Amino acid sequence: MDTPAHPHGDPFARLDEQAEVRRAAGLVRTLRPRPADSPLLDLASNDYLGLTRHPEIVEGAAAAARTWGAGATGSRLVTGTTELHAELERELAEFCGFEAALVLSSGYAANLAAVTALAPHGTLIVSDAGNHASLIDGCRLARGTTAVAAHNDPEAVRKALGTHDGPALAVTDSVFSVDGDRAPLAELASVCRESGAGLLLDDAHGLGVLGDAGQGAAYAAGLAGAPDVVATVTLSKSLGSQGGAVLGPARVIDHLVNTARTFIFDTGLAPAAAGGALAALRLLRREPARAARAREVATALHTGLTNAGLETVRPDAAVVSVRAPSPDEAVAWAADCRAAGLVVGCFRPPSVPDGISRLRLTARADLTDAQIADAVRTIVRTAP
Amino acid sequence: MDTPAHPHGDPFARLDEQAEVRRAAGLVRTLRPRPADSPLLDLASNDYLGLTRHPEIVEGAAAAARTWGAGATGSRLVTGTTELHAELERELAEFCGFEAALVLSSGYAANLAAVTALAPHGTLIVSDAGNHASLIDGCRLARGTTAVAAHNDPEAVRKALGTHDGPALAVTDSVFSVDGDRAPLAELASVCRESGAGLLLDDAHGLGVLGDAGQGAAYAAGLAGAPDVVATVTLSKSLGSQGGAVLGPARVIDHLVNTARTFIFDTGLAPAAAGGALAALRLLRREPARAARAREVATALHTGLTNAGLETVRPDAAVVSVRAPSPDEAVAWAADCRAAGLVVGCFRPPSVPDGISRLRLTARADLTDAQIADAVRTIVRTAP
Repeated sequence: MDTPAHPHGDPFARLDEQAEVRRAAGLVRTLRPRPADSPLLDLASNDYLGLTRHPEIVEGAAAAARTWGAGATGSRLVTGTTELHAELERELAEFCGFEAALVLSSGYAANLAAVTALAPHGTLIVSDAGNHASLIDGCRLARGTTAVAAHNDPEAVRKALGTHDGPALAVTDSVFSVDGDRAPLAELASVCRESGAGLLLDDAHGLGVLGDAGQGAAYAAGLAGAPDVVATVTLSKSLGSQGGAVLGPARVIDHLVNTARTFIFDTGLAPAAAGGALAALRLLRREPARAARAREVATALHTGLTNAGLETVRPDAAVVSVRAPSPDEAVAWAADCRAAGLVVGCFRPPSVPDGISRLRLTARADLTDAQIADAVRTIVRTAP
Repeated sequence: MDTPAHPHGDPFARLDEQAEVRRAAGLVRTLRPRPADSPLLDLASNDYLGLTRHPEIVEGAAAAARTWGAGATGSRLVTGTTELHAELERELAEFCGFEAALVLSSGYAANLAAVTALAPHGTLIVSDAGNHASLIDGCRLARGTTAVAAHNDPEAVRKALGTHDGPALAVTDSVFSVDGDRAPLAELASVCRESGAGLLLDDAHGLGVLGDAGQGAAYAAGLAGAPDVVATVTLSKSLGSQGGAVLGPARVIDHLVNTARTFIFDTGLAPAAAGGALAALRLLRREPARAARAREVATALHTGLTNAGLETVRPDAAVVSVRAPSPDEAVAWAADCRAAGLVVGCFRPPSVPDGISRLRLTARADLTDAQIADAVRTIVRTAP
């Protein structure tokens, strides 16, 4: 071109500088497309119950696409709510022990919806330091003011709530995705009740795993259905599909329908995703032992790795976190596992809140004892 | 219970007051689940090409669930990228004329990703006053500073950009969802280039409709593939499925992979949604006349309604907006249409940026001339 398009420069030139900084720091993220049938053993996904390829769930998704179409066609408030969405919401609320549920297109959207709708101007949000990015973004979008409390520290939450006179909301993951540790929900609820604050918990990693039959962390803590407790869940982990949901008192759900922007201004969840999740939920109700098996697999992984001398966090749900000495060694460790046929998660700065690098293993309920033993052997053998 | 759960009160009591205010103002939103086979004629969805129930798209979704599972199982950066996602990204980028594409779980997530990643601290964002909620939330989440420019006013954008010396990004819908009007993209790009600003356009309502074969607004304006232009699209409107995507230079897409929180910390798009969208894209490439038909249907609706004396905005794409005298009359009008077998959108404050109430009609490419004539008759007959 004769005329330069940008007399004042290239607007995205600075992206190259940032890419160079990432390269120099060994922090480049790349997408690695997987084939349909991988020979690798997966201990990195969040498919805790091993349902995403279960024939009933797959057929639930396929049948929903046939019956309802490939898309929801619009906002849930215009044309995007089908009887299938309503059915899923009823059964999900009932299973988890809540009065009502609202399904959104992702867990991320559910968290943005719940935090923003429940924390308008004048609200104090007390947010756990280890919370998921979607809760943090919810806090940033909400009109209320956020105070970050130390991780899993009800006393810190009490102190923060004590500084505020108006409405307040404590926000926490129920199971933290990186380390797999559980929030002290009963203590948090008690602290909230002292000052009349609401409690919002993100049960993305608890649904399907915690509670006798996988009803989730709120149920397990005796908090499901409480008038002051709201939970969010994903349909993309234990339920093997896609989407998120908010569970709570009917008036909270009604409030979300009327005010939550990520609900109102988003296309409804695709019927296939709703159908897949509903099939998974029904399977779990019929075969509740799957939840206990996920916890058992987690314990077996933890025991095997700990006995071999690796520093492993005792799992509260189905996530097992193994410490690595450094970011570079974590990356090399995960790569060695992969070369040996085992896919594990590798978490390191800056995507971990505490700066600690680790392997993250997920304890799928459908792993056999032989697969668990194999996985432990591989991780131990490749350890730095 | 003997012990009150909330000595300091019920944390969600204020929601009832707000619900009462909504009731008194006639602004209650309710979900209306639709059956699988409705006898009503749909002019309210965003299924512009009428593809969501097309057998090829439905089977594309069902086959993808069978081959890849009902869910993506994790973040795109961990286990959530399949070869299907990569295929969709390649074909979508190629069709729309961009170097690269990145698929996310919704258009909302795509907009949050694009705005936040391209407008870090120190960036001036100039945002059109009529922009979609997801762009606005992107501006609020971004670390940059936002200036709102008058609707479709390149001169206002030039002025705003002139106040700032550092990096800048102009952000606009390409087709505004409420009124169906088109942004002056060529002028905006020219204004941006004067000062070296980037241009981000949300083509949710342009893809599949604008451009000879539906390649979208950026393509139609000669901006596709430009080094300083980024577009977002949805897979849930013309492509009949679910999800969103960002299109742009490879270095921008690479930057998003590395930094965009709604990409990194979200489960990947479900295979069924990716498969449905890919099937729709391939159908559109094979039958490009569908795009022109959507525009033709929009023109026919506009002509019919205008000839009957209704105040209708000349459609730039496939959205036709008809003015209503008041919010109450808009609601009654839409209800009368529904009673006569026609579903139309009803937009009114507070979900419209300009305070104007209107019916919103979508010009589906698969409407017959008889259906168009019927729809016009019904809308005219029920007009306030």
